[in-house]
Amino acid sequence: MAEVVVLAYSGGLDTSVALKWLQVERGFDVVALSVDVGQQEDLEAVRTRALATGAIAAEVVDARDAFADDYIARAIKADARYENRYPLVSSLSRPLISERLVEVARRYGASAVAHGCTGKGNDQVRFEVALAALAPDLTVLAPVRDWGMNREDTIEYGRAHGVTLTQSKENPYSIDQNLWGRAVECGEMEDPWAAPPSDVWAYTAGGLASLPDQVVIGFEQGVPVSLDGERLPLAALVDRLNRIAGSWQVGRIDMVENRRVGIKSREVYEAPAAVVLLEAHRQLEDITLEREVAHAKIELGLRWATLVYDGLWFSPLKHAIDAFIDEASKPVTGEVRVRFAPNAFWVDGRRSPSSLYDYELATYASEDRFRHGDAEGFVRIFGLGIRTWAERQGGLRP
Amino acid sequence: MAEVVVLAYSGGLDTSVALKWLQVERGFDVVALSVDVGQQEDLEAVRTRALATGAIAAEVVDARDAFADDYIARAIKADARYENRYPLVSSLSRPLISERLVEVARRYGASAVAHGCTGKGNDQVRFEVALAALAPDLTVLAPVRDWGMNREDTIEYGRAHGVTLTQSKENPYSIDQNLWGRAVECGEMEDPWAAPPSDVWAYTAGGLASLPDQVVIGFEQGVPVSLDGERLPLAALVDRLNRIAGSWQVGRIDMVENRRVGIKSREVYEAPAAVVLLEAHRQLEDITLEREVAHAKIELGLRWATLVYDGLWFSPLKHAIDAFIDEASKPVTGEVRVRFAPNAFWVDGRRSPSSLYDYELATYASEDRFRHGDAEGFVRIFGLGIRTWAERQGGLRP
Amino acid sequence: MAEVVVLAYSGGLDTSVALKWLQVERGFDVVALSVDVGQQEDLEAVRTRALATGAIAAEVVDARDAFADDYIARAIKADARYENRYPLVSSLSRPLISERLVEVARRYGASAVAHGCTGKGNDQVRFEVALAALAPDLTVLAPVRDWGMNREDTIEYGRAHGVTLTQSKENPYSIDQNLWGRAVECGEMEDPWAAPPSDVWAYTAGGLASLPDQVVIGFEQGVPVSLDGERLPLAALVDRLNRIAGSWQVGRIDMVENRRVGIKSREVYEAPAAVVLLEAHRQLEDITLEREVAHAKIELGLRWATLVYDGLWFSPLKHAIDAFIDEASKPVTGEVRVRFAPNAFWVDGRRSPSSLYDYELATYASEDRFRHGDAEGFVRIFGLGIRTWAERQGGLRP
Amino acid sequence: MAEVVVLAYSGGLDTSVALKWLQVERGFDVVALSVDVGQQEDLEAVRTRALATGAIAAEVVDARDAFADDYIARAIKADARYENRYPLVSSLSRPLISERLVEVARRYGASAVAHGCTGKGNDQVRFEVALAALAPDLTVLAPVRDWGMNREDTIEYGRAHGVTLTQSKENPYSIDQNLWGRAVECGEMEDPWAAPPSDVWAYTAGGLASLPDQVVIGFEQGVPVSLDGERLPLAALVDRLNRIAGSWQVGRIDMVENRRVGIKSREVYEAPAAVVLLEAHRQLEDITLEREVAHAKIELGLRWATLVYDGLWFSPLKHAIDAFIDEASKPVTGEVRVRFAPNAFWVDGRRSPSSLYDYELATYASEDRFRHGDAEGFVRIFGLGIRTWAERQGGLRP
Repeated sequence: MAEVVVLAYSGGLDTSVALKWLQVERGFDVVALSVDVGQQEDLEAVRTRALATGAIAAEVVDARDAFADDYIARAIKADARYENRYPLVSSLSRPLISERLVEVARRYGASAVAHGCTGKGNDQVRFEVALAALAPDLTVLAPVRDWGMNREDTIEYGRAHGVTLTQSKENPYSIDQNLWGRAVECGEMEDPWAAPPSDVWAYTAGGLASLPDQVVIGFEQGVPVSLDGERLPLAALVDRLNRIAGSWQVGRIDMVENRRVGIKSREVYEAPAAVVLLEAHRQLEDITLEREVAHAKIELGLRWATLVYDGLWFSPLKHAIDAFIDEASKPVTGEVRVRFAPNAFWVDGRRSPSSLYDYELATYASEDRFRHGDAEGFVRIFGLGIRTWAERQGGLRP
Repeated sequence: MAEVVVLAYSGGLDTSVALKWLQVERGFDVVALSVDVGQQEDLEAVRTRALATGAIAAEVVDARDAFADDYIARAIKADARYENRYPLVSSLSRPLISERLVEVARRYGASAVAHGCTGKGNDQVRFEVALAALAPDLTVLAPVRDWGMNREDTIEYGRAHGVTLTQSKENPYSIDQNLWGRAVECGEMEDPWAAPPSDVWAYTAGGLASLPDQVVIGFEQGVPVSLDGERLPLAALVDRLNRIAGSWQVGRIDMVENRRVGIKSREVYEAPAAVVLLEAHRQLEDITLEREVAHAKIELGLRWATLVYDGLWFSPLKHAIDAFIDEASKPVTGEVRVRFAPNAFWVDGRRSPSSLYDYELATYASEDRFRHGDAEGFVRIFGLGIRTWAERQGGLRP
Repeated sequence: MAEVVVLAYSGGLDTSVALKWLQVERGFDVVALSVDVGQQEDLEAVRTRALATGAIAAEVVDARDAFADDYIARAIKADARYENRYPLVSSLSRPLISERLVEVARRYGASAVAHGCTGKGNDQVRFEVALAALAPDLTVLAPVRDWGMNREDTIEYGRAHGVTLTQSKENPYSIDQNLWGRAVECGEMEDPWAAPPSDVWAYTAGGLASLPDQVVIGFEQGVPVSLDGERLPLAALVDRLNRIAGSWQVGRIDMVENRRVGIKSREVYEAPAAVVLLEAHRQLEDITLEREVAHAKIELGLRWATLVYDGLWFSPLKHAIDAFIDEASKPVTGEVRVRFAPNAFWVDGRRSPSSLYDYELATYASEDRFRHGDAEGFVRIFGLGIRTWAERQGGLRP
Repeated sequence: MAEVVVLAYSGGLDTSVALKWLQVERGFDVVALSVDVGQQEDLEAVRTRALATGAIAAEVVDARDAFADDYIARAIKADARYENRYPLVSSLSRPLISERLVEVARRYGASAVAHGCTGKGNDQVRFEVALAALAPDLTVLAPVRDWGMNREDTIEYGRAHGVTLTQSKENPYSIDQNLWGRAVECGEMEDPWAAPPSDVWAYTAGGLASLPDQVVIGFEQGVPVSLDGERLPLAALVDRLNRIAGSWQVGRIDMVENRRVGIKSREVYEAPAAVVLLEAHRQLEDITLEREVAHAKIELGLRWATLVYDGLWFSPLKHAIDAFIDEASKPVTGEVRVRFAPNAFWVDGRRSPSSLYDYELATYASEDRFRHGDAEGFVRIFGLGIRTWAERQGGLRP
């Protein structure tokens, strides 16, 4: 009896050929697994295709709520933007898909799992490190990385083995999308001086009429819980906000980023809900976090984003930073008002029952309760070390 | 003969009354100093007013180029945004004004210098720590902090001593502006839930017709040197970019920030050139800085911004971080293309002779020279510590 | 009826005079509170003295276990050494004493609490910030800081008001001691070039015969729980280890440190148990913490130590770092063997059921299960960014 | 004509067999290079052996001064201790040897260089990343990693090809030593619970009679320049201090460390001069560095040590941190007095012309010029954020 491998299956060319290759070249019984993380594709069709390509079984798992509640919520609390910019679209879904691969592998008694990533991207790292953490006993196969076929070879192998090629050869882009955003690479954007062609946009293509130009987002302990006062599951909230912000063409990111494998790559992202929620969350933190914890959280949030980008979702450092963030996020409850205009959004109001903004301290009006007399002593002692340092030099040269 | 004090003089109500108060209540001969840091005010009129208010001398110093070359250039290289957002408008001008205060104090044989800051803001800290560093021997006076007058008292004292009140009592805002931006506080914005009124905007009021919707910014070693190929002194470049970006209503920032003195305050900034140059600079760094130095520079840039915000421009830590930044910035030479739309701007191209973006490594096309076979070993060793950690627990619970 | 103030009372000159001064000059009814944090003094005598000096009540609280379990245990888990050296002797006791001050103040309906610290030390900051956090409504008095008396004045005032001076005028040192260590300042050590006189040592005076030259310390989740296999409450464990290590003259620290108030001060500490437990704990972490969490914990531990040194025990950043540390410390269970010699100690063995040290990976013997073939790919990709950076420059100049 | 490879040659078994293997199996002309970094071996004998083993040429380079001045000096300025403990013995010599390999390769027109490291250590990373930076065009060979021979195979291959085995088979340790220290691995120490056998020590074997029990070390800008007032080249100073401290059995380090390749390994180091100089340097920094720069330098020093440990000596982040350290180290000039006792040393005096220790600020005597009145205001504003935070919760629960 053949060994079973569970393959993370997207329905695209690479994973379809991988399915066939694992079966033909390596003699595996292949179980195809497609995880719905909000990528808005017809996963029943994908399932059918897997079976047509030779899978002994094909599973579709709806993980949208788990993705929102266990992954996106953590990313928001962490203010997670890799290199201060990228809101971790694909980085977030890989560990979740790894969890599901292990579950299905256990169910089928599989000895191996497989992914369709190449050798130069980040996703191989994310899958393999997550799988090493979750199931150190399972073998992980990376057929696309191993077989050494270029695109033409792949198409040729597929054709030779009866893999139907639904994907148009015209589409020059490599795309990954989920509830939290959409990533587009390749094509003419491989020249970082070239502007992205207008046909790359989908989530922010705009064109939806009569959407609101303002929303009030409610948060509890750092997690979004309502839009305009209506409580929503996070997955639904993100989905609705994707449509609103996307209709204003808000959420486009064009950057060159540093991959874990030592390569710089030009990436274009669309993350309408993500950029809005991250900014709204930061603004709510501005009134609810004490200065020192706020500053430390910026640093640790950057570290968190790098860890998750690098595939270390399941790692003791990530877990420990999560504990820090959970503690720090306790007061981050309140509301933020966001305004939209074409290509733009901004926050113009934030309020919280646990706000540390104190009108009576801040105001320049007469009801002020700040003790001005304290300031002189504060400033002198605050600057005492600098004064001593400068005195040793007879004063700096102005 | 009276002792001489040099007062940083803006021509506004507070410093005019302070001038009179130092003269009348403290018996000083007052020298008024007004420093042009690009605030676009009629400083000759300010000078005349100082003399009319009783100054024994009134000096106007044009420090626009020094401000750009010695302060703004450093802020750009540091990617300086306090709390990841505020581009340090007033924080940058205070140490420069302190330098000029000391110079003029030496020229006049003054025993003291004075500023017009209150006890609850950041600027008192910035002036006094800078002055302690530059001239530990000079006494620093803060009449506005010390006298304990509220706004009504101040107006009354001024009127009683013949200080002409040019400032309209209607303007409810406290404003500070210079070449790098404009800060607006107070009025109804003291409620952080209230949107800023439409009359607060000046640098980004828009309305200039026919300005370009695209510029190419050239940088050398991290400093902007040209616009659309035309080499410009930095002060002129910033000034021109303020007009271009401001006409698109780009550069507005609405935030609650953490002051050094333990207070949260709502601030509204307009910094059109600043936000564009900082983003363009970051994008150029994305292709010219190696990953680890880029990540470390983000952290140290945040620290630099906090130091400068806190008034520690002249401090050994700031100097040492500058040395780090100067070394790291050596390859940051190249061009960045910025696009504008109403309320929005974005970068869609960046190029550099020292770019580390390597098409042959990054591309998914066949001329790829990345060695895919290396990836398997890399990923396994990269994840080895996590694998060992997880094995000790029999694999994590998925 | 007089208002009640609760005074942190040590029985020394300063707090005795402060007690009298609060009573005579400020008209308070004074409740004296003496907290036993292991300082090995006769607190009943101190209590009697407080009453003799005029206190309306005098309380002695035994807080040794609370000090060990709630404060010292956290310091060990944090590897807390301020400036990488000082194990936080006094810094740890101040917030605990503040807690007890508030408890007693509530019990007596006091409107104020008081401490006997001067204006140039750290302890005023620690008391006042802790008290502001615990009881923002209580007034905090600092009579010694406020009255402006020098030592001679103080003695004179005491004598004039019948305060018995038990303290010898000969002792030139300022001393604070507790279960976690002993701090000595002043005297000839105010010259940082002068060696500490031999009479400053007490905890490490040595001279105890026949103590063991080896102990095995057991830890659970980062906290010491046993000595040589015998389970002990932490307070008892620390006490016993103070005697063992102190008998070997281990635990002396001579340093110049940076106070929060901008002053450098020469400090001599004796902390026999502390230095041994901190080193043993670090060595146990070496085998139980994964590399990245270990490295991050060093940084956050330094930050934690600075926060606690600066008086921010009760602060949201300290709380959030504690959450990080608690999570990271979960696997830090095991045993460490410590050896002693005169003036010296070292760890020469550590073991743990959750050890990540893997003989089969580490050994150079033939049972090795490290995959050597992985290394080539790892090294190449690990260095790829550096290679690209160097290639841009035609290779660095050797 | 054969291609030329330059091999880093130690004269030991592994590199001798590697020499032969490169010649026989790969057909190279091998040039052997032995670099004197203070390892106190007879390198002329090593040279002779290389030629006897078949090298076409054998070079010995005395790099002791370069090692001290370009590598050790930087490590001291950085306070470099990996994981707060290991003073970077082998990590420092690898990039220097890489420099010399490239120089010799250029001289001989070699197309490749080679090292004798295995696949599970750090040194392969250090060599290969340094070589990639210095000479991206050269091929790097790692015969010992590649050939897959265990120890027995290696000996057998050597014997079969006439490689004389001078090394005793009894010595169970793997040793690397240089001017900065000595590293010992393997044998029974592969059990981290086992104490190091007494025969592992060499640099700290003690037994030298009548060496001084005190030295005064002079520093200029962070670099040691004199012992007891006698100016010495750094290499000579380190050498002499190795003998003095070693005679007191000072400088032993026993730890489990985290290798770059994901393995924990037990390491025993002897670094007599290193531990003394690093501590003396830190103590001098305590009086010459302002608090904030001192704290930041601790963090960056840890990062520097990790970078160098990881083989990133030639990297832009290391270079930028060096610039920070050079700037910060400018005032680190002065003298430190070190005392020795068996197994122990400590600093008991430090002084500097640029000392920031200010007796008049620090003293509790009456000539005090600290303004005590400033403290109240300082403490209140310093704690204002915490007070506000606690007030929102009605005070923390004590």
